[in-house]
Amino acid sequence: MLIEAANRLNIQVNVLDAAASPAKQISAHDGHIEGSFKDAAAVKALAQASDVVTVEIEHVDTHMLEEVASEVIVEPSWKTLRTIKDKYAQKHYLKEHGVDVADSIDLEGKGVDGLKEVGATYGYPYMLKSKTEAYDGRGNFVVKSEADVEAAFEALGQRPLYAERWADFRIELAVMVVKTKDGVLTFPTVETVHEDSICKLTYAPPRNVSEKTAQRAQDLAKKAIGAFEGKGVFGVEMFLLKDDSLLINEIAPRPHNSGHYTIEACPISQYDAHLRAILDLPISQASLRLREPSIMLNILGGQTPDSHVQVANKALESPNASVHLYGKGDARPGRKMGHITVTAPTLAAAEREMQPLIDFVDSQKGKAPEPRKELGSSTKGEPLVAVIMGSDSDLPVLKAGLQILEKLDIPFTTRITSAHRTPDWLREFSKAAASTSLKVIIGAAGGAAHLPGMCASWTTLPVIGLPVKATHMDGWDSLVSMTQMPRGEPVATVGINNSTNAALLAVRILGASDLAVRERLRVWMEGNEVEVLRKDKALLEDGWEVYLQSMGK
Amino acid sequence: MLIEAANRLNIQVNVLDAAASPAKQISAHDGHIEGSFKDAAAVKALAQASDVVTVEIEHVDTHMLEEVASEVIVEPSWKTLRTIKDKYAQKHYLKEHGVDVADSIDLEGKGVDGLKEVGATYGYPYMLKSKTEAYDGRGNFVVKSEADVEAAFEALGQRPLYAERWADFRIELAVMVVKTKDGVLTFPTVETVHEDSICKLTYAPPRNVSEKTAQRAQDLAKKAIGAFEGKGVFGVEMFLLKDDSLLINEIAPRPHNSGHYTIEACPISQYDAHLRAILDLPISQASLRLREPSIMLNILGGQTPDSHVQVANKALESPNASVHLYGKGDARPGRKMGHITVTAPTLAAAEREMQPLIDFVDSQKGKAPEPRKELGSSTKGEPLVAVIMGSDSDLPVLKAGLQILEKLDIPFTTRITSAHRTPDWLREFSKAAASTSLKVIIGAAGGAAHLPGMCASWTTLPVIGLPVKATHMDGWDSLVSMTQMPRGEPVATVGINNSTNAALLAVRILGASDLAVRERLRVWMEGNEVEVLRKDKALLEDGWEVYLQSMGK
Repeated sequence: MLIEAANRLNIQVNVLDAAASPAKQISAHDGHIEGSFKDAAAVKALAQASDVVTVEIEHVDTHMLEEVASEVIVEPSWKTLRTIKDKYAQKHYLKEHGVDVADSIDLEGKGVDGLKEVGATYGYPYMLKSKTEAYDGRGNFVVKSEADVEAAFEALGQRPLYAERWADFRIELAVMVVKTKDGVLTFPTVETVHEDSICKLTYAPPRNVSEKTAQRAQDLAKKAIGAFEGKGVFGVEMFLLKDDSLLINEIAPRPHNSGHYTIEACPISQYDAHLRAILDLPISQASLRLREPSIMLNILGGQTPDSHVQVANKALESPNASVHLYGKGDARPGRKMGHITVTAPTLAAAEREMQPLIDFVDSQKGKAPEPRKELGSSTKGEPLVAVIMGSDSDLPVLKAGLQILEKLDIPFTTRITSAHRTPDWLREFSKAAASTSLKVIIGAAGGAAHLPGMCASWTTLPVIGLPVKATHMDGWDSLVSMTQMPRGEPVATVGINNSTNAALLAVRILGASDLAVRERLRVWMEGNEVEVLRKDKALLEDGWEVYLQSMGK
Repeated sequence: MLIEAANRLNIQVNVLDAAASPAKQISAHDGHIEGSFKDAAAVKALAQASDVVTVEIEHVDTHMLEEVASEVIVEPSWKTLRTIKDKYAQKHYLKEHGVDVADSIDLEGKGVDGLKEVGATYGYPYMLKSKTEAYDGRGNFVVKSEADVEAAFEALGQRPLYAERWADFRIELAVMVVKTKDGVLTFPTVETVHEDSICKLTYAPPRNVSEKTAQRAQDLAKKAIGAFEGKGVFGVEMFLLKDDSLLINEIAPRPHNSGHYTIEACPISQYDAHLRAILDLPISQASLRLREPSIMLNILGGQTPDSHVQVANKALESPNASVHLYGKGDARPGRKMGHITVTAPTLAAAEREMQPLIDFVDSQKGKAPEPRKELGSSTKGEPLVAVIMGSDSDLPVLKAGLQILEKLDIPFTTRITSAHRTPDWLREFSKAAASTSLKVIIGAAGGAAHLPGMCASWTTLPVIGLPVKATHMDGWDSLVSMTQMPRGEPVATVGINNSTNAALLAVRILGASDLAVRERLRVWMEGNEVEVLRKDKALLEDGWEVYLQSMGK
C-alpha cells in the first residue's frame, strides 16, 4: 500500500523482500533487492541504492540500520526502532517521558518464581509478554491464576519476558500519528476490535465514545510519539478504561493495520503521510480529517486456500465497500490476506453495510452471527431523528409527523423523557445524543414545556420544539416556553400541535447536507403542489357551490 | 489507473503497449505484450494471453478486434467501437436511436464547396470535424465565417470530414455510464471546462445546475449508451444549451478524463466499474454516489520538462488534494501528465482550495489569474447561511446573531428581500437557494412577517424565522405568523428579537453533519458554562450585596 502511494507520485521505491513479493508485484523496475530484512548485506545494498531507508516491520536489526545511517537517511531513527521493538523498553521509555502506560515488571532471568511474584503484586489475571518479536497475539499469554503459571512459562519461557498489569478496558482505541520535520500530527481516533488477539475491525469514529475522549486519545498519542526521534507514521494502540482514563498499550513505528481505513476515509492515507513525512514533503493536519465514517474489516486466511477470495467476492456485492487483496497467494489460517473498508455518510449506515460481511467471515470460522441489537421504534437502520415526548399523551399529536418521517424514509426513534419526572434520564439522553447516529431531536411537550429547552441545553444537535395544546391556554404556554429560550440555547419552534411541520423541519435539516433526502422532500412538496393545483382546477371548473357540496358541507 | 484498480483485486492485466509504459510500471509480470495497439500480430498475441480484451483508446483497428472476438471476449463490442470511433457514424447512430445530438452533415468528398454549403445551411460559426482520430481538440476547426473556409479545408481537407451545427451552450456536462450484463448505471453528472479544446477542469456536482437538470443529463447519457452493444464504462459529453435543453456532444467507449474524479469522490471509481462490468463482477447504482463534492484539474505538460512536477509539488501543499502523476517521463506541451482531485464537504470549499492551483497552472502558461468574484458580506468563502431581512430596519436586531456567525467561523451572506415589496426577488432568491452553497436560511421580519414562511414555500432548505418586534403588539404578530405555518412548510421559529439564537440554531443545523462546526459550537457553549460558573462562585464568595454593588445596581 506504500507502493501504491509512491506510484501515484512517481517515486521509485526499492523493496528489500523476496522476489515477486506483494510490493514488488506493483513496482516494475530493477532497483529492488532480493533477500530478507534480517540479512546485513541486503540491507547494505538497499541503503546504497536509495536516498532514504524506512521500515514496514520493526523486527529489523537496528545495528545494521545504525551502521548504514552514516551513508543514507534512515527514518524513523534506528534509536527509536531499537527502543520500540523491545516492548518492555518501549514502556519504560514512555513512562520516563510522562506518558500513561500499563504498569509492567521485567521478568528476564526470573523464572517461574518471577511469574508467581507478579501474581502476588498485580493479582490475576495479568499479561505475560515476550519483549521482542511478538505481534498479532503471538508471544502473549494471559495468566488467569497461579495454576496457569507453569503453562505460561512453558509456552514463552525461552523468550525475554515481562509482565503487564491487566487493563480492565471498556474498548480499545488507536490513533495513527505522523511525525514530520515540523511537528506531530494525528489522524482521527478509531476503535479497534480484536479477535484471537488479531485486529479484526476498526471503527472511525469509535462507537459510543465522546468527541472529548477521542480528542484526549489523539493528545495522548501525540505526546507519546513526540517523545521519540525521527519521522514517519506511528500506530498508537490504547485502552479506554472503564473509568474513562486512557493507557497506551503498544506503539508501532510504521504504518499500521488500524490506519488502513485512511486510504478511503481521509484526504491523504497513512501511506501518503508516511512518504511525505520521511521525504520532507508538505503535509498538514487538515489532510488528516475523516471524509466519511468508515469501518475496516481484515480479511484473514481461513481453512481453504481461497477463503480470502470468497470474502472479497462477497464484499464486491456491498455498494460502499473497497476491497484490497495483498497478492500473497494462497491463504494460511490467520494470515492477513487483505482488508475491506466501508465508508458511508453515517457510522450507523456503515455498520448496517458491514454486518453481512462480518457474519460471512464469522460463518467461515463456524461462528454463529451475533443477535442484532434492538433499534427501538425506528423504521429502519440507526435513527437520525429522535422524537422525544414529555408524556405518552403527546403521542396522538405526534402521529402525523411520525407518518411523514416514515413516508420520507427517515429512520427515527421515539422516546418518553419528561423534564420534570425523569430529569436525569433526559440529561443522560441529551448528553449522549451527539455521539450517536442522531442528527436532529424533536421535543414535544405541553404546559410549561421545558423538554426541548432542557434537551437543547445538554446537546449541540439542533432541537425542534413542538408545542402541544394542553388543558389550559390553548397551547400558548408551550409555544412561548419554547420560542423564548435565553440567548445561547435555541429551540426551533413550530406551530401548536403541528407535528407535520416538526417532522418536515427535521427532514429539511437532514436535507441540508444529504442531497438524497432533499430530493425526496422536493418530490413530496411537488406532489402537494400538484394536489392543490388539481383542487383549484376543480373549483374553477365546477364552481364553488358544487365544490362545496362535494366536500359534504 | 485501470491497473491500480486491478492490482487491488489481484487481477492480472496483460498490457499491450511500449516497454516501461505507465501501465507496465505498476504491473510486474511477464504476461505483457510489447508493441502498438495498431499492430495486428500484437493484438492477436494479447488475445491469446487473456480471457477478456478491452480498450483504453477507441482509435484501434476494429477489424482486428472482430477477428479475435471468436477466440476471446472483447468488451465493449467491436461493433460499438467501430460505430463510435467514427464521430459522424456515432451521431448518425444516436439520432437513429432517438437520442438528441447536434445536427451534422457529411462532407466526405465534397471539398471546399461542401464547406460553403454548410455555412449556407447552418450559418456561421459551425464546427468542422474529422470523423476519426480526433481528440483533445486535434481534428476540429471552428469555421467562424465564409472567410475561414479555405483555411479550414487547408487544415483538415486530407481527413474524412463532417460538419456540426454550432451548439450555443451555457456549459458542458459529462456523465460516466456503466453498461453491465444486467443494465445501464450512471455516475453523477459533472461540469467540464475546456481550454484550448482540452479538458481542464471537472466539477462534481456541476455549478449552478439544478438537480433536475443533472438528472436529465444522466437519463440522456443512459439512453445513449443503452443503444450500444457490449459492456464497460462510457464517457458521455453533453452541451447544456441556454434554453436548458441537452445535446450529446461526443461519446468515448472507455474510461474518460471526465470520470477521473470518481477515484476519490465515489465508493468505486470508473476503473473499478469498468473492470467489474467487463468481468461480470457485481456492481450497483448505490456504489456510484458522490461521497463528497470534488473538482479535478488536469496537469498538462508545459514549456519545461518538469512543469508537471512543479504543479504536483504545489498540489501537495493543498490539504484535500490527491495527486496522480502518470509516469510519462518528461512533459511535452499540452500532454496529459497527471491530474489533481480536490474533494471537500462543499463544492464551494473545494473551489476555494482548487483556485490557487488553477492560478498556478495559468501562470505557468503566462495567463493572469481571473478576478475573484464578489462574495457579498460573507466573512469568508461561499456562504452556508443566508440571513435575509424584510427591511434594513431589522439589521440592528440581527447584529448579535451575525457576530455569532463570524465568531464561529460560518460563512454567510446578508440580503434585503421583502415578501411584499420585492415578492419576485424573494421568489427568485428562494427558488435558487438550494442549488447554491447555502444550507440554511435565516429570515428576520416584523409585523405580518411573511418573509420566512414564503421563503420556506419556495425552497427545500431549512428556514429559521426570527420575529422582530415592530411598532405594535410587542412582536407577538411576527411570532405567530412564523410558528403557525400551515402543515407542509415549517419555519423554525426562535424568540422575539433573539438573533443570537437564530444564528446558533443555524450553527446547530450545520453541525448536524459537519463535526468541525459541531466541535466549535461545543467549545463555545463550554465557555458560556465556565462564565456562569465563575459568576456563581463570585456570588457565593462575595455575598449577594457585594455582588449587586459590583453590578452597579
